[in-house]
Amino acid sequence: MRAAVMYKAHDVRIENVPDPAISEPTDAVIRVTRACICGSDLWPYNGGPNVERQLMGHEAIGIVEDVGREVRTIRRGEVVIMPFTSSDGTCMFCEEGLQTACVHRGFFGSGTGLGGAQAEALRIPLADGTLFPLAVDKDDALMPSLLTLSDVMGTGHHAAVSAKVGPGRKVAVIGDGAVGLCGVLAAKRLGAEQIVILGRHPDRIALAQEFGARDVVSERGDAAVERVRELTGGFGAHSVLECVGTAQAIDTAVSIARPGGTVGRVGVPHYEAVPHAGSMFYGNIGVAGGPAPTRGYITELLPDLLDGRIDPGRVFDRTIGLDDVPAGYRAMNEREAIKVLIKP
Amino acid sequence: MRAAVMYKAHDVRIENVPDPAISEPTDAVIRVTRACICGSDLWPYNGGPNVERQLMGHEAIGIVEDVGREVRTIRRGEVVIMPFTSSDGTCMFCEEGLQTACVHRGFFGSGTGLGGAQAEALRIPLADGTLFPLAVDKDDALMPSLLTLSDVMGTGHHAAVSAKVGPGRKVAVIGDGAVGLCGVLAAKRLGAEQIVILGRHPDRIALAQEFGARDVVSERGDAAVERVRELTGGFGAHSVLECVGTAQAIDTAVSIARPGGTVGRVGVPHYEAVPHAGSMFYGNIGVAGGPAPTRGYITELLPDLLDGRIDPGRVFDRTIGLDDVPAGYRAMNEREAIKVLIKP
Repeated sequence: MRAAVMYKAHDVRIENVPDPAISEPTDAVIRVTRACICGSDLWPYNGGPNVERQLMGHEAIGIVEDVGREVRTIRRGEVVIMPFTSSDGTCMFCEEGLQTACVHRGFFGSGTGLGGAQAEALRIPLADGTLFPLAVDKDDALMPSLLTLSDVMGTGHHAAVSAKVGPGRKVAVIGDGAVGLCGVLAAKRLGAEQIVILGRHPDRIALAQEFGARDVVSERGDAAVERVRELTGGFGAHSVLECVGTAQAIDTAVSIARPGGTVGRVGVPHYEAVPHAGSMFYGNIGVAGGPAPTRGYITELLPDLLDGRIDPGRVFDRTIGLDDVPAGYRAMNEREAIKVLIKP
Repeated sequence: MRAAVMYKAHDVRIENVPDPAISEPTDAVIRVTRACICGSDLWPYNGGPNVERQLMGHEAIGIVEDVGREVRTIRRGEVVIMPFTSSDGTCMFCEEGLQTACVHRGFFGSGTGLGGAQAEALRIPLADGTLFPLAVDKDDALMPSLLTLSDVMGTGHHAAVSAKVGPGRKVAVIGDGAVGLCGVLAAKRLGAEQIVILGRHPDRIALAQEFGARDVVSERGDAAVERVRELTGGFGAHSVLECVGTAQAIDTAVSIARPGGTVGRVGVPHYEAVPHAGSMFYGNIGVAGGPAPTRGYITELLPDLLDGRIDPGRVFDRTIGLDDVPAGYRAMNEREAIKVLIKP
């Protein structure tokens, strides 16, 4: 089959690789019908620390092609969402709804051991726990939005939940990438009183405003901190969604949180420590978040998505075939596309 | 009047200083009937960064001696608890129950602008918001426990609340000082399933066990992390109460938290940043806490204290007069006393 393979920074190729097959009795194999490129894929694309030949992609919808003999609930022919990690669905962490801490957790793509979703097909470990079956046609018009439940919408929701967004809360979202945009949508859905987006790309900001952002801060660093405080009555935001992962982003996040506020971070951290331990302490500011348990969030988000109350699929502004994946990486990296959808 | 004055590290003296007096119409003046020495007083005592001549003490019970003309609810002759910060009781932070973020917040003692409680008397700004009146006699047998509501019991409770202690939760408490001991008591009161105390002073550990700690870890660093994981089923504690404030303590705190767990920190941080930003992220481990809003917690804790369900006053194992305060500092610093109560 064909699959996207990253060789090194800025070098993604479409290659023939061995077809995936059942290797454990709890496995399934899916034919990928929709995949996409994640902002986090751009870290290795730009020369992250561990780039070597690796299969890419961790977000997919597919059709179940084969199941192992111990798979109980997932059936051949079903349309399924594949979250970005595998999970057994039975351990205590899965039972608590933290599937990304599953004792049998695996990450898809990016050289993490499991296969990549930017491919024609994929082996899914622990299929019953990992996959979420959908009662829709494989070409349903909602496919882009449904695909976001694999990662990006669930991740934006996790940022909002971790930051304790709720009615009456003033919210700041750092980052206008697809996760930040979904964070805006999630904050709006959870009843935020005011949403400030920190970003500087006009197309993304426009979508953030449609998703519910009232204020835009294009400054960075100290100027951004000052501007957010002005916009939030002088004290900062109750909830800050950190959707970038750089040292500057977490610095700003902590600095714009109001006393008693919380930073929900979902940007993969490219920093060693959370700064401002003293001012965070004196302000009783909390920091939470991490890899979103998107498998668990599907149940909560799906009804609103099917009813049209949220339309996170709008973060996709380009659709390509598998052969165009290298160009898709370039487009996202150059900020020419917000998020690229792949039809393998 | 006489008051404890710290001149420099290891140099505390009892001196005559000017009597406190009403200076704002919202002030009160209290005669201090009970005060104490706080673990945090030992930071400047051991040569903290800003030690210069300063009045000490931020925990007190007293009798109201005088009130300004705009004081509405507090009356002369009342027995009152003085929390370690002043607060107006009316700003949005006070209304939210975060009195330590009050827009008119002031800290008592330690050269922070307000007077010290290790003295015969004290000026209290914003008396109506700051002071909590008690319906007990000034020499009630519960005075030691009531005094802990000024800081140490409220602070232990805040660590537990910030760390999300509740029924079924495995809890680790870092530090066997008076705050850590009150953290154990608070965790027990909130229904913790298991409490592990990290500390190494036999007298303090014995009290921790009476307060509800089941397990004791006297190791430090990596050995402590390993031991806590063993004791908590391999994954660490749901709730970690960080009651020390050193770089090693926060490092251990983050390292012994279970995936999805939370560190509640109340030790004044003597570190610049919260370490392990990556492993915290991948484990969805949160960090919260700060100066406890003890003024707000009194309402919640007082009934249990009056009913004898909690007896935090047991952290006091030495009672002295004002003249013995310098010796009291030495005793706490040498770990000869857990916490020293002062009858001025």
